[in-house]
Amino acid sequence: MQSKLIVQKYGGSSVGDVGRIERVCDKIISYAKKGNKLAVVVSAMGDTTDELIELAKKINPNPEEREMDMLISTGEQISSALLAMAIHKRGHEAISFTGSQVGIITDKYHTKAKILKIETDRIKKELTAGKIVIVAGFQGKSTKSEITTLGRGGSDLSAVALAVALGADMCEIYTDVEGIYTADPRIIKNAKKLSFITFDEMLELAARGAQVMQTRAVEVGKKFNMPIYVKSSFSEKEGTVIMDKLPHIEESVVRGVALTENEAKITICDVPDKPGIAARIFNDLARESVNIDMIVQNVSHKKMTDISFTVPKDKIAKTLKVSKKIADNIGAGGIISDEAIAKVSVVGVGMKSQSGVAAKCFSCLAKHKINIEMISTSEISISCVVKKDLGKEALKVLHKEFGLDKIKG
Amino acid sequence: MQSKLIVQKYGGSSVGDVGRIERVCDKIISYAKKGNKLAVVVSAMGDTTDELIELAKKINPNPEEREMDMLISTGEQISSALLAMAIHKRGHEAISFTGSQVGIITDKYHTKAKILKIETDRIKKELTAGKIVIVAGFQGKSTKSEITTLGRGGSDLSAVALAVALGADMCEIYTDVEGIYTADPRIIKNAKKLSFITFDEMLELAARGAQVMQTRAVEVGKKFNMPIYVKSSFSEKEGTVIMDKLPHIEESVVRGVALTENEAKITICDVPDKPGIAARIFNDLARESVNIDMIVQNVSHKKMTDISFTVPKDKIAKTLKVSKKIADNIGAGGIISDEAIAKVSVVGVGMKSQSGVAAKCFSCLAKHKINIEMISTSEISISCVVKKDLGKEALKVLHKEFGLDKIKG
Repeated sequence: MQSKLIVQKYGGSSVGDVGRIERVCDKIISYAKKGNKLAVVVSAMGDTTDELIELAKKINPNPEEREMDMLISTGEQISSALLAMAIHKRGHEAISFTGSQVGIITDKYHTKAKILKIETDRIKKELTAGKIVIVAGFQGKSTKSEITTLGRGGSDLSAVALAVALGADMCEIYTDVEGIYTADPRIIKNAKKLSFITFDEMLELAARGAQVMQTRAVEVGKKFNMPIYVKSSFSEKEGTVIMDKLPHIEESVVRGVALTENEAKITICDVPDKPGIAARIFNDLARESVNIDMIVQNVSHKKMTDISFTVPKDKIAKTLKVSKKIADNIGAGGIISDEAIAKVSVVGVGMKSQSGVAAKCFSCLAKHKINIEMISTSEISISCVVKKDLGKEALKVLHKEFGLDKIKG
Repeated sequence: MQSKLIVQKYGGSSVGDVGRIERVCDKIISYAKKGNKLAVVVSAMGDTTDELIELAKKINPNPEEREMDMLISTGEQISSALLAMAIHKRGHEAISFTGSQVGIITDKYHTKAKILKIETDRIKKELTAGKIVIVAGFQGKSTKSEITTLGRGGSDLSAVALAVALGADMCEIYTDVEGIYTADPRIIKNAKKLSFITFDEMLELAARGAQVMQTRAVEVGKKFNMPIYVKSSFSEKEGTVIMDKLPHIEESVVRGVALTENEAKITICDVPDKPGIAARIFNDLARESVNIDMIVQNVSHKKMTDISFTVPKDKIAKTLKVSKKIADNIGAGGIISDEAIAKVSVVGVGMKSQSGVAAKCFSCLAKHKINIEMISTSEISISCVVKKDLGKEALKVLHKEFGLDKIKG
């Protein structure tokens, strides 16, 4: 059997306590025994990061981001050292590294740094020497030699970027779910695990509410065509490979559905129907770092128009403040916000070449008396905003309509 | 008032929780407001280090020392980041550094590294920019770019070494006691706090059982003549300055007494009285890293001699093993170990020039019917081994005999 270079990543719940660290350790060693070279990226144990953040907030509600990175980067340093110790105990060679030590070089934007490059000399030397290399995830060193962190879910990014830099054969993400499903299995009982999904589908599902992998990690995978294998660290079941193209000859058009209840709908009423006004609204919001998702401009009447869009719920206050200012300025009628909405989406790369998916989606919802308030489409997805209390029902009927309960991986 | 460069060190109990960190923060700012430049060395919060060690031992009873350093160095990184955040909140500028970042370069002996040099460029730059610099104590970076730690009490050493490297005006050690006393105040109620003590006296007291400052830190202070001011972080009372020479014109001969119950007496009986045998015993023990303290060779009879020495209690098993081997080899009679001993010592630089201290010491103990089992002397100290249950009584009578209850600082 051919020896492979594999990058594995274990999330916080996979190394949540001593027993789990030992289980992960056994898993790692079983791969090493097959002759594979292994670089293992590890998150902080359980809720360590949240606990450190909470401690910081007690001392300073607005801690400086550089110091925040000094603080929270310790979580992964701890878990990686412990994992190395567990491997030693089982008689295998291992060495742990912080992000700084292993040469994960980032820009200087603390708590949300981007990886610029990875210097792989040290890690390659240790791999060649036969050691299992353990890397503290979520962190790096800025070009100014400061400790940086990569933002929520950053260990996924560390793993994929490291796999790319090392030219690994595969990047495996071990998590607390068994893979990527056609829908959230907590809502749709007969959701099916997919054996394969494309990077684009994964990105689209993530953007529409599926929370399995960090989006930036999938983007890096797509950019460098590094296959990512998502599987459970608690079972031996097969997971899902995220890859460039599906290996199937024929594929189902829709591959998954997603639901999010984290957005709110904002409507600016009676906007004078002049060119450039929509652009101005969205420029101003962008300047305040508010990411707008769906935008709908209603049919105008008496030279007036209503502009609606959705924003993440935690940005409502900021959005209303900015919108109010603009509304006053351009003489708009007023602003309405509605938090009681849900967004349901259907996603699939096959939609590019297949017509009628939107029509099927809308008639399905109509048939079930679910009113659509907003619609937006991309090349490979259709999203509909519905009343919040109908969101789960909408997800269910769409899942069934597109035959996802009978899909074969 | 002239601005000074001060290095301060706060121990683990001084930063044990959020409230204590805030109190330390207020203290630091009060010094900064007087126009002083401050570099602050901080230990891990409360029992963090012990908790991390315990966690490691659960995973691997004999963890590799390099990984141990990766693990336990996080404690100081956390407390220094939190302290910087607390200072920011009060509107002052501060920046925290790990030992690696700040250029504390050590040898490669993990968990007990020695400081080789300190590169002060970065720290000087931040001090010049008006920032309070917070340094994670107890740690450094080896010449092989690995994270190292300096051993128990290592933050004291970080502080003194940093003060030397920066050419600071003073090194202040804030701890949970108010200074150096003529005896342990928990045993001798009327023990007096000394305003000044020499490096040599402090080293001698530490070696004889007084546990205020790390010995290596005092040695560095002595070597570079850096005065060390030991005081409480919980009160405003004056502490004790450890310095080269006492400022007094006349000084009391004995400056302190110390007691330790952590040693055991080992006797190798009926050793053939030939040259080189004692040397052989102590060489073999040294090779096993057993530090012997007092050595007494009893009067020989029939060309036989008894050799007794004391060792730390946690080295008894190892010592007995080595001694047994040697005893068999040289045809000695047998080995006796006695853990029920205490060692009481009187210390003072004035003893160099004053005779009769030993005599006074022995008669005092005799007067109180305390039998002396072993005696050893150095230039500035006399130590006597007595029965364990008489140790505290011996300490008390000697403290009184040498007038330490009436000493003036």
